[in-house]
Amino acid sequence: MARVAAVQLAPVVGRLAENQAAATEAIAAAFAAGADIVVLPELATSGYVFESLAEARSVALPADAAIFGEWAQLAAGRENSVVIAGFAELGDDDLVYNSAVMIDASGVLGVYRKVHLWNEEKRFFQAGNSAPLAIDTAHGRIGIMICYDLEFPEWTRLAALAGIDILTVPTNWPLVYRPTGERVPEVQIGIVAARVNRMAVVCADRTGTERGVEWSEGTTIVGADGWVVDAVGAGIGTAWAELDAALSQDKTLTDFSDVFGDRRPELYRELSGG
Amino acid sequence: MARVAAVQLAPVVGRLAENQAAATEAIAAAFAAGADIVVLPELATSGYVFESLAEARSVALPADAAIFGEWAQLAAGRENSVVIAGFAELGDDDLVYNSAVMIDASGVLGVYRKVHLWNEEKRFFQAGNSAPLAIDTAHGRIGIMICYDLEFPEWTRLAALAGIDILTVPTNWPLVYRPTGERVPEVQIGIVAARVNRMAVVCADRTGTERGVEWSEGTTIVGADGWVVDAVGAGIGTAWAELDAALSQDKTLTDFSDVFGDRRPELYRELSGG
Repeated sequence: MARVAAVQLAPVVGRLAENQAAATEAIAAAFAAGADIVVLPELATSGYVFESLAEARSVALPADAAIFGEWAQLAAGRENSVVIAGFAELGDDDLVYNSAVMIDASGVLGVYRKVHLWNEEKRFFQAGNSAPLAIDTAHGRIGIMICYDLEFPEWTRLAALAGIDILTVPTNWPLVYRPTGERVPEVQIGIVAARVNRMAVVCADRTGTERGVEWSEGTTIVGADGWVVDAVGAGIGTAWAELDAALSQDKTLTDFSDVFGDRRPELYRELSGG
Repeated sequence: MARVAAVQLAPVVGRLAENQAAATEAIAAAFAAGADIVVLPELATSGYVFESLAEARSVALPADAAIFGEWAQLAAGRENSVVIAGFAELGDDDLVYNSAVMIDASGVLGVYRKVHLWNEEKRFFQAGNSAPLAIDTAHGRIGIMICYDLEFPEWTRLAALAGIDILTVPTNWPLVYRPTGERVPEVQIGIVAARVNRMAVVCADRTGTERGVEWSEGTTIVGADGWVVDAVGAGIGTAWAELDAALSQDKTLTDFSDVFGDRRPELYRELSGG
Protein backbone atom coordinates (compact mmCIF):
# COMPACT_ATOMS: atom_id res chain seq x y z
CA MET A 1 0.00 0.00 0.00
CA ALA A 2 1.52 3.32 -1.10
CA ARG A 3 0.60 6.69 0.28
CA VAL A 4 0.55 8.99 -2.74
CA ALA A 5 0.72 12.79 -2.76
CA ALA A 6 -0.13 14.74 -5.92
CA VAL A 7 1.00 18.30 -5.44
CA GLN A 8 -0.52 21.28 -7.25
CA LEU A 9 2.09 24.04 -7.54
CA ALA A 10 2.32 27.48 -9.18
CA PRO A 11 5.60 27.65 -11.12
CA VAL A 12 6.50 30.97 -12.74
CA VAL A 13 7.95 30.93 -16.23
CA GLY A 14 11.69 31.61 -16.28
CA ARG A 15 12.16 31.64 -12.49
CA LEU A 16 14.25 28.50 -12.33
CA ALA A 17 15.74 29.01 -8.87
CA GLU A 18 12.43 29.93 -7.21
CA ASN A 19 10.58 27.09 -8.93
CA GLN A 20 13.24 24.58 -7.88
CA ALA A 21 13.05 25.83 -4.30
CA ALA A 22 9.24 25.60 -4.25
CA ALA A 23 9.38 22.09 -5.69
CA THR A 24 11.97 20.97 -3.14
CA GLU A 25 9.91 22.46 -0.32
CA ALA A 26 6.78 20.68 -1.57
CA ILE A 27 8.59 17.34 -1.78
CA ALA A 28 9.98 17.72 1.72
CA ALA A 29 6.54 18.66 3.06
CA ALA A 30 4.90 15.66 1.39
CA PHE A 31 7.48 13.27 2.83
CA ALA A 32 7.06 14.87 6.25
CA ALA A 33 3.32 14.22 5.94
CA GLY A 34 3.95 10.53 5.19
CA ALA A 35 4.03 10.31 1.42
CA ASP A 36 5.67 7.29 -0.23
CA ILE A 37 5.22 8.68 -3.75
CA VAL A 38 5.23 12.41 -4.50
CA VAL A 39 4.07 13.66 -7.91
CA LEU A 40 4.69 17.23 -9.08
CA PRO A 41 3.31 18.99 -12.19
CA GLU A 42 4.66 19.15 -15.71
CA LEU A 43 7.50 21.66 -16.20
CA ALA A 44 7.52 22.27 -12.45
CA THR A 45 11.01 23.79 -12.50
CA SER A 46 10.67 25.94 -15.64
CA GLY A 47 7.11 27.23 -15.93
CA TYR A 48 5.06 26.67 -19.08
CA VAL A 49 4.11 29.70 -21.17
CA PHE A 50 7.34 30.26 -23.09
CA GLU A 51 7.68 32.92 -25.76
CA SER A 52 10.65 31.42 -27.56
CA LEU A 53 12.81 28.35 -27.82
CA ALA A 54 15.68 30.40 -26.39
CA GLU A 55 13.60 31.09 -23.29
CA ALA A 56 12.75 27.40 -22.86
CA ARG A 57 16.39 26.46 -23.39
CA SER A 58 17.54 28.98 -20.78
CA VAL A 59 15.71 27.09 -18.01
CA ALA A 60 16.28 23.55 -19.32
CA LEU A 61 18.14 21.12 -17.04
CA PRO A 62 20.21 18.07 -17.91
CA ALA A 63 19.01 14.70 -16.60
CA ASP A 64 21.85 14.80 -14.04
CA ALA A 65 21.04 18.27 -12.69
CA ALA A 66 22.04 18.99 -9.10
CA ILE A 67 18.42 19.54 -8.04
CA PHE A 68 17.63 15.87 -8.71
CA GLY A 69 20.40 14.90 -6.31
CA GLU A 70 18.75 17.07 -3.66
CA TRP A 71 15.44 15.31 -4.25
CA ALA A 72 17.17 11.93 -4.01
CA GLN A 73 18.52 13.02 -0.62
CA LEU A 74 14.99 13.90 0.49
CA ALA A 75 13.83 10.48 -0.74
CA ALA A 76 16.62 8.87 1.28
CA GLY A 77 14.86 10.14 4.39
CA ARG A 78 11.89 7.84 3.87
CA GLU A 79 12.23 4.15 3.00
CA ASN A 80 11.18 3.16 -0.53
CA SER A 81 10.01 6.64 -1.41
CA VAL A 82 9.79 7.99 -4.95
CA VAL A 83 9.56 11.45 -6.54
CA ILE A 84 8.12 12.22 -9.98
CA ALA A 85 8.31 15.73 -11.43
CA GLY A 86 8.18 17.48 -14.78
CA PHE A 87 11.05 19.63 -16.04
CA ALA A 88 12.36 21.21 -19.23
CA GLU A 89 15.20 18.92 -20.27
CA LEU A 90 18.33 19.85 -22.18
CA GLY A 91 19.27 16.61 -23.90
CA ASP A 92 22.74 15.28 -24.66
CA ASP A 93 21.76 16.06 -28.24
CA ASP A 94 21.38 19.74 -27.30
CA LEU A 95 17.63 19.57 -28.02
CA VAL A 96 15.01 20.67 -25.49
CA TYR A 97 12.38 18.19 -24.28
CA ASN A 98 9.26 18.40 -22.13
CA SER A 99 10.31 15.67 -19.71
CA ALA A 100 9.59 14.15 -16.32
CA VAL A 101 11.98 12.40 -13.99
CA MET A 102 11.53 9.55 -11.49
CA ILE A 103 13.87 9.61 -8.53
CA ASP A 104 14.45 7.50 -5.44
CA ALA A 105 17.16 7.49 -2.77
CA SER A 106 19.62 6.04 -5.30
CA GLY A 107 19.15 8.96 -7.71
CA VAL A 108 17.46 9.26 -11.10
CA LEU A 109 15.62 6.04 -12.04
CA GLY A 110 14.54 7.27 -15.44
CA VAL A 111 13.44 10.18 -17.58
CA TYR A 112 10.41 10.28 -19.85
CA ARG A 113 10.13 12.71 -22.77
CA LYS A 114 6.59 13.78 -23.71
CA VAL A 115 5.57 12.04 -26.93
CA HIS A 116 2.41 13.99 -27.78
CA LEU A 117 3.23 17.70 -27.72
CA TRP A 118 0.33 20.10 -27.17
CA ASN A 119 -0.22 23.14 -29.35
CA GLU A 120 2.67 25.67 -29.23
CA GLU A 121 4.88 23.21 -27.35
CA LYS A 122 5.80 22.09 -30.85
CA ARG A 123 7.62 25.41 -31.25
CA PHE A 124 9.77 24.83 -28.17
CA PHE A 125 10.21 21.12 -27.61
CA GLN A 126 11.37 18.05 -29.44
CA ALA A 127 8.90 15.14 -29.12
CA GLY A 128 10.02 11.99 -27.34
CA ASN A 129 10.00 8.63 -29.09
CA SER A 130 9.90 6.15 -26.20
CA ALA A 131 7.18 4.29 -24.36
CA PRO A 132 5.68 5.59 -21.14
CA LEU A 133 8.33 5.17 -18.45
CA ALA A 134 7.71 2.05 -16.33
CA ILE A 135 9.84 1.38 -13.24
CA ASP A 136 9.41 -1.39 -10.69
CA THR A 137 9.39 -0.08 -7.13
CA ALA A 138 8.42 -1.37 -3.70
CA HIS A 139 4.96 0.07 -4.39
CA GLY A 140 4.41 -1.65 -7.71
CA ARG A 141 5.30 -0.62 -11.22
CA ILE A 142 5.12 3.15 -11.46
CA GLY A 143 4.70 4.83 -14.82
CA ILE A 144 5.01 8.32 -16.25
CA MET A 145 3.38 10.08 -19.14
CA ILE A 146 2.82 13.84 -19.48
CA CYS A 147 -0.37 15.88 -19.87
CA TYR A 148 -1.67 15.64 -23.48
CA ASP A 149 -0.23 12.10 -23.72
CA LEU A 150 -3.16 11.07 -21.51
CA GLU A 151 -5.63 12.02 -24.25
CA PHE A 152 -4.39 9.26 -26.53
CA PRO A 153 -6.08 6.03 -25.49
CA GLU A 154 -3.45 4.11 -27.43
CA TRP A 155 -0.87 5.51 -25.02
CA THR A 156 -2.69 4.78 -21.77
CA ARG A 157 -3.48 1.27 -23.02
CA LEU A 158 0.20 0.69 -23.85
CA ALA A 159 1.06 1.86 -20.33
CA ALA A 160 -1.41 -0.57 -18.78
CA LEU A 161 -0.30 -3.46 -21.01
CA ALA A 162 3.28 -2.72 -19.90
CA GLY A 163 2.12 -3.61 -16.40
CA ILE A 164 2.03 -0.11 -14.92
CA ASP A 165 0.07 -0.17 -11.66
CA ILE A 166 0.21 3.52 -10.83
CA LEU A 167 0.38 5.87 -13.79
CA THR A 168 1.63 9.30 -12.78
CA VAL A 169 0.80 12.20 -15.07
CA PRO A 170 2.53 15.52 -14.48
CA THR A 171 0.29 18.04 -16.26
CA ASN A 172 -0.32 21.72 -17.02
CA TRP A 173 -3.94 21.91 -18.15
CA PRO A 174 -4.88 25.33 -19.55
CA LEU A 175 -8.36 26.30 -18.40
CA VAL A 176 -11.02 25.44 -21.01
CA TYR A 177 -14.79 25.85 -21.07
CA ARG A 178 -16.89 23.39 -19.16
CA PRO A 179 -20.59 23.44 -18.30
CA THR A 180 -21.49 24.13 -14.67
CA GLY A 181 -21.14 21.04 -12.52
CA GLU A 182 -18.89 19.19 -14.96
CA ARG A 183 -15.42 17.97 -14.07
CA VAL A 184 -12.35 19.25 -15.91
CA PRO A 185 -12.52 17.34 -19.21
CA GLU A 186 -8.94 16.10 -18.95
CA VAL A 187 -9.78 14.70 -15.51
CA GLN A 188 -12.68 12.82 -17.08
CA ILE A 189 -10.21 11.36 -19.55
CA GLY A 190 -7.96 10.27 -16.66
CA ILE A 191 -10.89 8.67 -14.86
CA VAL A 192 -11.82 6.63 -17.92
CA ALA A 193 -8.17 5.68 -18.58
CA ALA A 194 -8.16 4.28 -15.04
CA ARG A 195 -11.48 2.50 -15.45
CA VAL A 196 -10.97 0.78 -18.79
CA ASN A 197 -7.45 -0.31 -17.84
CA ARG A 198 -7.92 -1.01 -14.10
CA MET A 199 -4.86 1.18 -13.44
CA ALA A 200 -4.52 3.93 -10.83
CA VAL A 201 -3.97 7.38 -12.40
CA VAL A 202 -2.34 10.25 -10.51
CA CYS A 203 -2.54 13.65 -12.20
CA ALA A 204 -0.57 16.57 -10.71
CA ASP A 205 -1.71 19.81 -12.32
CA ARG A 206 -0.55 23.40 -11.81
CA THR A 207 -2.16 26.65 -10.65
CA GLY A 208 -1.17 30.34 -10.80
CA THR A 209 -1.93 32.57 -13.80
CA GLU A 210 1.07 32.72 -16.17
CA ARG A 211 1.24 35.35 -18.97
CA GLY A 212 -2.55 35.51 -18.94
CA VAL A 213 -3.06 31.74 -19.08
CA GLU A 214 -5.24 30.25 -16.35
CA TRP A 215 -5.22 26.59 -15.43
CA SER A 216 -7.81 23.92 -14.67
CA GLU A 217 -6.27 23.15 -11.27
CA GLY A 218 -7.27 19.56 -11.94
CA THR A 219 -4.91 17.65 -9.62
CA THR A 220 -6.76 14.36 -9.02
CA ILE A 221 -5.99 10.81 -7.89
CA VAL A 222 -8.12 8.04 -9.42
CA GLY A 223 -8.15 4.47 -8.12
CA ALA A 224 -7.86 1.41 -10.32
CA ASP A 225 -11.65 1.06 -10.00
CA GLY A 226 -12.11 4.35 -11.88
CA TRP A 227 -13.40 6.40 -8.95
CA VAL A 228 -11.79 9.61 -7.73
CA VAL A 229 -10.09 9.24 -4.37
CA ASP A 230 -9.03 12.86 -3.86
CA ALA A 231 -8.62 16.14 -5.75
CA VAL A 232 -7.14 19.51 -4.84
CA GLY A 233 -9.42 22.11 -6.40
CA ALA A 234 -8.36 25.76 -6.50
CA GLY A 235 -4.92 26.98 -5.46
CA ILE A 236 -1.77 25.33 -4.21
CA GLY A 237 -2.44 22.06 -2.39
CA THR A 238 -2.00 18.29 -2.25
CA ALA A 239 -4.32 15.39 -3.06
CA TRP A 240 -3.75 12.20 -1.07
CA ALA A 241 -4.58 8.56 -1.61
CA GLU A 242 -3.56 5.09 -0.43
CA LEU A 243 -3.05 3.04 -3.58
CA ASP A 244 -2.63 -0.72 -3.63
CA ALA A 245 -0.80 -2.07 -6.69
CA ALA A 246 -2.61 -5.40 -6.25
CA LEU A 247 -5.87 -3.73 -7.26
CA SER A 248 -4.30 -2.60 -10.52
CA GLN A 249 -2.95 -6.10 -11.15
CA ASP A 250 -6.39 -7.70 -11.00
CA LYS A 251 -7.96 -7.12 -14.40
CA THR A 252 -10.96 -9.33 -13.65
CA LEU A 253 -14.43 -7.79 -13.88
CA THR A 254 -16.64 -10.87 -13.45
CA ASP A 255 -16.22 -14.66 -13.63
CA PHE A 256 -16.34 -14.36 -17.42
CA SER A 257 -14.92 -10.88 -18.07
CA ASP A 258 -11.47 -9.37 -17.91
CA VAL A 259 -10.40 -5.99 -19.27
CA PHE A 260 -7.31 -7.45 -20.90
CA GLY A 261 -8.58 -10.95 -21.65
CA ASP A 262 -11.59 -9.59 -23.52
CA ARG A 263 -9.46 -7.54 -25.90
CA ARG A 264 -9.30 -8.68 -29.55
CA PRO A 265 -5.76 -7.64 -30.47
CA GLU A 266 -5.56 -9.59 -33.74
CA LEU A 267 -8.71 -7.86 -34.90
CA TYR A 268 -7.39 -4.42 -33.88
CA ARG A 269 -4.18 -5.09 -35.77
CA GLU A 270 -5.94 -6.38 -38.87
CA LEU A 271 -8.43 -3.51 -38.99
CA SER A 272 -5.85 -0.80 -38.37
CA GLY A 273 -3.90 -2.13 -41.33
CA GLY A 274 -0.91 -2.99 -39.26
CA MET B 1 -28.13 18.53 -39.07
CA ALA B 2 -29.80 15.33 -37.84
CA ARG B 3 -32.45 15.15 -35.14
CA VAL B 4 -31.52 12.06 -33.13
CA ALA B 5 -33.74 10.11 -30.74
CA ALA B 6 -32.22 7.58 -28.33
CA VAL B 7 -35.04 5.52 -26.89
CA GLN B 8 -34.87 3.77 -23.51
CA LEU B 9 -37.19 0.76 -23.57
CA ALA B 10 -38.03 -2.13 -21.23
CA PRO B 11 -37.89 -5.38 -23.22
CA VAL B 12 -38.92 -8.59 -21.44
CA VAL B 13 -36.86 -11.71 -21.98
CA GLY B 14 -38.55 -14.22 -24.27
CA ARG B 15 -41.51 -12.00 -25.20
CA LEU B 16 -40.57 -11.58 -28.84
CA ALA B 17 -43.95 -10.40 -30.13
CA GLU B 18 -44.52 -7.86 -27.36
CA ASN B 19 -40.96 -6.54 -27.59
CA GLN B 20 -41.24 -6.16 -31.36
CA ALA B 21 -44.53 -4.30 -30.96
CA ALA B 22 -43.06 -1.97 -28.33
CA ALA B 23 -40.03 -1.28 -30.51
CA THR B 24 -42.19 -0.58 -33.55
CA GLU B 25 -44.38 1.76 -31.51
CA ALA B 26 -41.31 3.59 -30.18
CA ILE B 27 -39.89 4.03 -33.69
CA ALA B 28 -43.20 5.35 -35.00
CA ALA B 29 -43.48 7.76 -32.07
CA ALA B 30 -39.95 9.05 -32.56
CA PHE B 31 -40.56 9.67 -36.28
CA ALA B 32 -43.84 11.39 -35.45
CA ALA B 33 -41.89 13.65 -33.08
CA GLY B 34 -39.45 14.60 -35.85
CA ALA B 35 -36.58 12.15 -35.48
CA ASP B 36 -34.22 11.60 -38.42
CA ILE B 37 -32.27 8.87 -36.61
CA VAL B 38 -33.86 6.56 -34.03
CA VAL B 39 -31.64 4.39 -31.83
CA LEU B 40 -33.06 1.52 -29.74
CA PRO B 41 -31.30 -0.57 -27.06
CA GLU B 42 -29.27 -3.75 -27.40
CA LEU B 43 -31.38 -6.91 -27.77
CA ALA B 44 -34.50 -4.76 -27.97
CA THR B 45 -36.58 -7.53 -29.52
CA SER B 46 -35.39 -10.43 -27.36
CA GLY B 47 -34.65 -9.22 -23.84
CA TYR B 48 -31.27 -9.83 -22.22
CA VAL B 49 -31.14 -12.14 -19.19
CA PHE B 50 -31.20 -15.53 -20.89
CA GLU B 51 -30.90 -18.78 -18.97
CA SER B 52 -29.76 -20.93 -21.86
CA LEU B 53 -28.58 -20.86 -25.43
CA ALA B 54 -31.83 -22.55 -26.41
CA GLU B 55 -33.77 -19.67 -24.92
CA ALA B 56 -31.66 -17.10 -26.78
CA ARG B 57 -32.03 -19.09 -30.00
CA SER B 58 -35.80 -19.26 -29.60
CA VAL B 59 -36.10 -15.48 -29.93
CA ALA B 60 -33.32 -14.94 -32.48
CA LEU B 61 -34.25 -13.34 -35.80
CA PRO B 62 -32.59 -13.63 -39.20
CA ALA B 63 -31.22 -10.44 -40.75
CA ASP B 64 -34.15 -10.43 -43.18
CA ALA B 65 -36.84 -10.76 -40.51
CA ALA B 66 -40.27 -9.33 -41.34
CA ILE B 67 -40.06 -6.80 -38.50
CA PHE B 68 -37.18 -5.03 -40.22
CA GLY B 69 -39.39 -4.58 -43.27
CA GLU B 70 -41.99 -2.93 -41.03
CA TRP B 71 -39.37 -0.55 -39.67
CA ALA B 72 -38.21 0.25 -43.20
CA GLN B 73 -41.80 1.16 -44.02
CA LEU B 74 -41.87 3.51 -41.03
CA ALA B 75 -38.59 5.02 -42.23
CA ALA B 76 -40.15 5.52 -45.66
CA GLY B 77 -42.57 7.96 -44.03
CA ARG B 78 -39.77 10.45 -43.28
CA GLU B 79 -37.13 11.47 -45.81
CA ASN B 80 -33.58 10.23 -45.15
CA SER B 81 -34.53 8.65 -41.84
CA VAL B 82 -32.63 5.78 -40.23
CA VAL B 83 -33.36 3.19 -37.52
CA ILE B 84 -30.74 1.40 -35.42
CA ALA B 85 -31.76 -1.38 -33.01
CA GLY B 86 -30.26 -4.35 -31.23
CA PHE B 87 -31.60 -7.88 -31.72
CA ALA B 88 -30.62 -11.50 -31.15
CA GLU B 89 -29.56 -12.71 -34.58
CA LEU B 90 -29.80 -16.20 -35.97
CA GLY B 91 -27.00 -16.30 -38.53
CA ASP B 92 -26.94 -18.15 -41.84
CA ASP B 93 -24.39 -20.34 -40.04
CA ASP B 94 -27.08 -21.28 -37.49
CA LEU B 95 -25.11 -19.52 -34.72
CA VAL B 96 -26.66 -16.88 -32.47
CA TYR B 97 -25.18 -13.35 -32.36
CA ASN B 98 -25.77 -10.26 -30.26
CA SER B 99 -26.36 -7.93 -33.20
CA ALA B 100 -27.71 -4.56 -34.22
CA VAL B 101 -29.27 -3.55 -37.50
CA MET B 102 -29.33 -0.29 -39.45
CA ILE B 103 -32.38 0.30 -41.59
CA ASP B 104 -33.65 3.02 -43.91
CA ALA B 105 -36.57 3.22 -46.32
CA SER B 106 -34.76 0.84 -48.68
CA GLY B 107 -34.49 -1.90 -46.04
CA VAL B 108 -31.57 -3.29 -44.06
CA LEU B 109 -28.37 -1.28 -44.68
CA GLY B 110 -26.17 -3.50 -42.54
CA VAL B 111 -25.90 -5.71 -39.47
CA TYR B 112 -23.18 -5.48 -36.81
CA ARG B 113 -22.34 -8.42 -34.55
CA LYS B 114 -20.99 -7.52 -31.09
CA VAL B 115 -17.26 -8.21 -30.99
CA HIS B 116 -16.64 -7.90 -27.23
CA LEU B 117 -19.11 -10.13 -25.40
CA TRP B 118 -19.85 -9.26 -21.78
CA ASN B 119 -19.80 -11.87 -19.02
CA GLU B 120 -22.37 -14.66 -19.52
CA GLU B 121 -23.14 -13.50 -23.05
CA LYS B 122 -20.25 -15.79 -23.92
CA ARG B 123 -22.51 -18.72 -23.01
CA PHE B 124 -25.20 -17.65 -25.45
CA PHE B 125 -23.64 -15.74 -28.31
CA GLN B 126 -20.94 -16.10 -30.89
CA ALA B 127 -18.63 -13.08 -31.05
CA GLY B 128 -18.54 -11.02 -34.24
CA ASN B 129 -15.30 -10.53 -36.14
CA SER B 130 -15.96 -7.39 -38.16
CA ALA B 131 -15.27 -3.69 -37.69
CA PRO B 132 -17.85 -1.34 -36.24
CA LEU B 133 -20.53 -0.90 -38.89
CA ALA B 134 -20.08 2.37 -40.82
CA ILE B 135 -22.72 3.51 -43.32
CA ASP B 136 -22.86 6.78 -45.23
CA THR B 137 -26.22 8.50 -44.91
CA ALA B 138 -27.66 11.93 -45.62
CA HIS B 139 -26.75 12.77 -42.00
CA GLY B 140 -23.09 11.75 -42.19
CA ARG B 141 -21.42 8.43 -41.61
CA ILE B 142 -23.37 6.55 -38.96
CA GLY B 143 -21.70 3.75 -37.00
CA ILE B 144 -22.77 0.93 -34.70
CA MET B 145 -21.06 -0.89 -31.88
CA ILE B 146 -22.80 -2.59 -28.96
CA CYS B 147 -22.54 -2.01 -25.20
CA TYR B 148 -19.27 -3.52 -23.83
CA ASP B 149 -17.58 -2.79 -27.19
CA LEU B 150 -17.56 0.86 -26.07
CA GLU B 151 -15.21 0.00 -23.17
CA PHE B 152 -12.39 -0.88 -25.57
CA PRO B 153 -10.70 2.36 -26.62
CA GLU B 154 -9.10 0.50 -29.51
CA TRP B 155 -12.61 -0.08 -30.87
CA THR B 156 -13.92 3.46 -30.52
CA ARG B 157 -10.69 4.79 -32.06
CA LEU B 158 -11.08 2.40 -35.00
CA ALA B 159 -14.63 3.65 -35.44
CA ALA B 160 -13.48 7.28 -35.46
CA LEU B 161 -10.60 6.57 -37.82
CA ALA B 162 -13.11 4.88 -40.15
CA GLY B 163 -14.76 8.29 -40.42
CA ILE B 164 -17.82 7.62 -38.29
CA ASP B 165 -19.49 10.93 -37.40
CA ILE B 166 -22.28 9.60 -35.22
CA LEU B 167 -21.50 6.41 -33.31
CA THR B 168 -24.68 4.70 -32.14
CA VAL B 169 -24.37 2.27 -29.24
CA PRO B 170 -27.35 0.05 -28.42
CA THR B 171 -26.66 -1.07 -24.83
CA ASN B 172 -27.99 -3.00 -21.84
CA TRP B 173 -25.98 -1.74 -18.87
CA PRO B 174 -26.60 -3.79 -15.71
CA LEU B 175 -26.75 -1.48 -12.69
CA VAL B 176 -23.41 -1.24 -10.88
CA TYR B 177 -22.25 0.68 -7.84
CA ARG B 178 -21.47 4.35 -8.23
CA PRO B 179 -20.81 7.00 -5.61
CA THR B 180 -23.54 9.58 -5.08
CA GLY B 181 -23.46 12.29 -7.70
CA GLU B 182 -21.43 10.29 -10.20
CA ARG B 183 -22.62 9.46 -13.69
CA VAL B 184 -23.11 5.87 -14.81
CA PRO B 185 -19.52 4.70 -15.41
CA GLU B 186 -20.26 3.43 -18.91
CA VAL B 187 -21.70 6.85 -19.76
CA GLN B 188 -18.43 8.39 -18.61
CA ILE B 189 -16.65 6.06 -21.01
CA GLY B 190 -18.96 7.19 -23.83
CA ILE B 191 -18.31 10.84 -23.01
CA VAL B 192 -14.56 10.34 -23.19
CA ALA B 193 -14.82 8.27 -26.39
CA ALA B 194 -16.63 11.28 -27.90
CA ARG B 195 -14.11 13.78 -26.55
CA VAL B 196 -10.85 12.12 -27.55
CA ASN B 197 -12.18 11.24 -31.00
CA ARG B 198 -14.35 14.32 -31.70
CA MET B 199 -17.20 11.94 -32.62
CA ALA B 200 -20.83 12.13 -31.46
CA VAL B 201 -21.85 9.10 -29.35
CA VAL B 202 -25.47 8.01 -28.95
CA CYS B 203 -26.13 5.37 -26.28
CA ALA B 204 -29.60 3.80 -26.05
CA ASP B 205 -29.87 1.83 -22.81
CA ARG B 206 -32.73 -0.24 -21.37
CA THR B 207 -34.88 -0.12 -18.25
CA GLY B 208 -37.25 -2.57 -16.53
CA THR B 209 -36.05 -5.20 -14.01
CA GLU B 210 -35.47 -8.56 -15.74
CA ARG B 211 -34.98 -11.76 -13.70
CA GLY B 212 -33.73 -9.65 -10.80
CA VAL B 213 -31.27 -7.63 -12.91
CA GLU B 214 -31.65 -3.86 -12.72
CA TRP B 215 -30.22 -1.46 -15.28
CA SER B 216 -28.32 1.79 -15.25
CA GLU B 217 -30.93 3.53 -17.42
CA GLY B 218 -28.02 5.40 -18.96
CA THR B 219 -29.47 6.49 -22.31
CA THR B 220 -27.36 9.55 -23.22
CA ILE B 221 -26.43 11.57 -26.31
CA VAL B 222 -22.95 13.11 -26.32
CA GLY B 223 -21.85 15.73 -28.87
CA ALA B 224 -18.55 15.60 -30.76
CA ASP B 225 -17.25 18.15 -28.25
CA GLY B 226 -17.59 15.60 -25.45
CA TRP B 227 -20.45 17.27 -23.60
CA VAL B 228 -23.77 15.60 -22.86
CA VAL B 229 -26.65 17.01 -24.89
CA ASP B 230 -29.48 14.98 -23.36
CA ALA B 231 -30.11 11.91 -21.20
CA VAL B 232 -33.27 10.02 -20.21
CA GLY B 233 -32.78 9.06 -16.57
CA ALA B 234 -35.20 6.60 -14.94
CA GLY B 235 -37.89 4.70 -16.82
CA ILE B 236 -38.99 4.53 -20.43
CA GLY B 237 -38.21 7.70 -22.36
CA THR B 238 -36.32 9.36 -25.19
CA ALA B 239 -33.22 11.57 -25.27
CA TRP B 240 -33.06 14.10 -28.13
CA ALA B 241 -30.24 15.97 -29.83
CA GLU B 242 -29.50 17.85 -33.05
CA LEU B 243 -26.18 16.47 -34.26
CA ASP B 244 -24.13 18.02 -37.06
CA ALA B 245 -21.76 15.61 -38.80
CA ALA B 246 -19.52 18.56 -39.75
CA LEU B 247 -18.56 18.96 -36.08
CA SER B 248 -17.36 15.37 -35.98
CA GLN B 249 -15.39 15.87 -39.19
CA ASP B 250 -13.34 18.73 -37.73
CA LYS B 251 -10.60 17.10 -35.65
CA THR B 252 -8.79 20.40 -35.03
CA LEU B 253 -8.27 21.47 -31.42
CA THR B 254 -6.02 24.52 -31.90
CA ASP B 255 -3.86 26.01 -34.67
CA PHE B 256 -1.21 23.44 -33.80
CA SER B 257 -3.23 20.49 -32.44
CA ASP B 258 -5.46 17.88 -34.02
CA VAL B 259 -6.78 14.74 -32.34
CA PHE B 260 -5.87 12.59 -35.33
CA GLY B 261 -2.85 14.52 -36.59
CA ASP B 262 -1.18 14.37 -33.18
CA ARG B 263 -1.36 10.57 -33.02
CA ARG B 264 1.93 8.63 -33.31
CA PRO B 265 0.72 5.49 -35.09
CA GLU B 266 4.19 4.16 -36.00
CA LEU B 267 5.18 4.37 -32.35
CA TYR B 268 1.98 2.62 -31.23
CA ARG B 269 2.61 -0.13 -33.74
CA GLU B 270 6.25 -0.55 -32.80
CA LEU B 271 5.58 -0.59 -29.06
CA SER B 272 2.64 -2.97 -29.29
CA GLY B 273 4.90 -5.40 -31.10
CA GLY B 274 2.87 -5.40 -34.25
